[in-house]
Amino acid sequence: MNIGIIGLGLMGGSLAKAVKRYGIAKKVYGFTNSEKNKKDILDLNLVDELVDLETLKKVSDVIILAIPVDAIIGMFPNFLDIDENTTIIDMGSTKGYIVKNIPAKIRKNFIAAHPMTGTEKSGPKAAIDDLYEGKTVVFCDLEDNGNLHVNKAFKIFQAIGMRIVVMDSNQHDIHACFMSHLPHILSFSLANTVMSHEDPKSIIALAAGGFKDMSRIAKSSPRMWGDIFKQNKKNLLASIDLFESQLQNARKMVEEDNYEDLEKWMKKANTLHEIL
Amino acid sequence: MNIGIIGLGLMGGSLAKAVKRYGIAKKVYGFTNSEKNKKDILDLNLVDELVDLETLKKVSDVIILAIPVDAIIGMFPNFLDIDENTTIIDMGSTKGYIVKNIPAKIRKNFIAAHPMTGTEKSGPKAAIDDLYEGKTVVFCDLEDNGNLHVNKAFKIFQAIGMRIVVMDSNQHDIHACFMSHLPHILSFSLANTVMSHEDPKSIIALAAGGFKDMSRIAKSSPRMWGDIFKQNKKNLLASIDLFESQLQNARKMVEEDNYEDLEKWMKKANTLHEIL
Repeated sequence: MNIGIIGLGLMGGSLAKAVKRYGIAKKVYGFTNSEKNKKDILDLNLVDELVDLETLKKVSDVIILAIPVDAIIGMFPNFLDIDENTTIIDMGSTKGYIVKNIPAKIRKNFIAAHPMTGTEKSGPKAAIDDLYEGKTVVFCDLEDNGNLHVNKAFKIFQAIGMRIVVMDSNQHDIHACFMSHLPHILSFSLANTVMSHEDPKSIIALAAGGFKDMSRIAKSSPRMWGDIFKQNKKNLLASIDLFESQLQNARKMVEEDNYEDLEKWMKKANTLHEIL
Repeated sequence: MNIGIIGLGLMGGSLAKAVKRYGIAKKVYGFTNSEKNKKDILDLNLVDELVDLETLKKVSDVIILAIPVDAIIGMFPNFLDIDENTTIIDMGSTKGYIVKNIPAKIRKNFIAAHPMTGTEKSGPKAAIDDLYEGKTVVFCDLEDNGNLHVNKAFKIFQAIGMRIVVMDSNQHDIHACFMSHLPHILSFSLANTVMSHEDPKSIIALAAGGFKDMSRIAKSSPRMWGDIFKQNKKNLLASIDLFESQLQNARKMVEEDNYEDLEKWMKKANTLHEIL
């Protein structure tokens, strides 16, 4: 089959590498509207051919959307004339808002997926060989998709080494919020706490593993994360409030020298690692 | 010289490995009051000999305290009869409270150090070969130490591959708070946010790099961190408040759909990585 990838940054570029490496696609086509990225995509040889959108729609058996979540919504009108056998897969980090807005005419074709993987980097040069290897991909609301399309999607993601999980899009958005969206806004907040100090350089000179790990994802793309926070606003606000109540609880125990309860609270946090 | 290490967990055990590997000590002595750890220390061959405290004081040219910060304070009375040429180095994560409480009689001997390194693990089995390699060690308030002692301390830590930074103990406690203590309480809070959900297992099934990195240090020892939070209480509370104002600011921008300012805020967070 031919695979067309729209957006060839970290996610799309790494997917292009993976489907080529595993010989899944006869040909990999790419489309980007970023002039800046075109040269990098060609230099890195990420796709067999960069084409315009209309060509990509005609030559691809599967079209994969690897663009920010608001841009996914913006693409819908372009797919209204798609062939009934063409599969469209979006890889956005939010699912509820996207699924709710898929035009009825392409609902059977349009697979809502979220590969739970990434790095803090973005753009074609961020593409890496094994981004998807051994990771989990979540598919949502598959009951509204045609079997032909579900099968093609499963085939591709399993072939590049992913484990499939299926869930309701609303449930996905809650889970992804705790596992990804909340950690990102906390990491941005931590980075800005330090950057707002009068002398961040001398503080950061002492950075070790803990701070480095906690601030790594504060390097992520503001454009991409703004869209995600917007589309998952309700869950994000709720998860921030849950986090706040934990942090305020800890703050209170420190302030009141209640180190016995604080130790119990930390022991509870330790139990995370019986699961993870 | 002979080095005596009190406490042979992650920090002390790794130091024993390092000084042996670099041939810095003629003999490495160890002392622990944990019966549970004694067998592991001997099985792992971390020291040449486990001795009692009085013996360790007599045979060591340098005594290193690698125990929780409250236990360091508790050890002071044991060192009042120390030889004037014996150096004592504490490796605690807080410095202000410790320095303030060093008995005058041993002030020249007692070097306040903080190697900025660690992992989330604890105990003798957590000891690793290269924990100190290429990392930074902070020495505080050296103006109150004798040159003999400062020179011995510098020699040891440089020989195991560390870079030396010198600062005032109060300044250290602020910097270490931002780089280590605040990140730890945030990580504990994030872990407890998820563990307090009705179904943490199904959520954690989707964990990827971001959450894993942000929750790693939530596995750290509650005993050790309770002591650190207690000794650095003032700075910790202040840094939590600074973090809170960043997170609340972000929350407000999301709530009010002010994505333009939110993007600017995230771009500021990105600038951390021009330094780190």
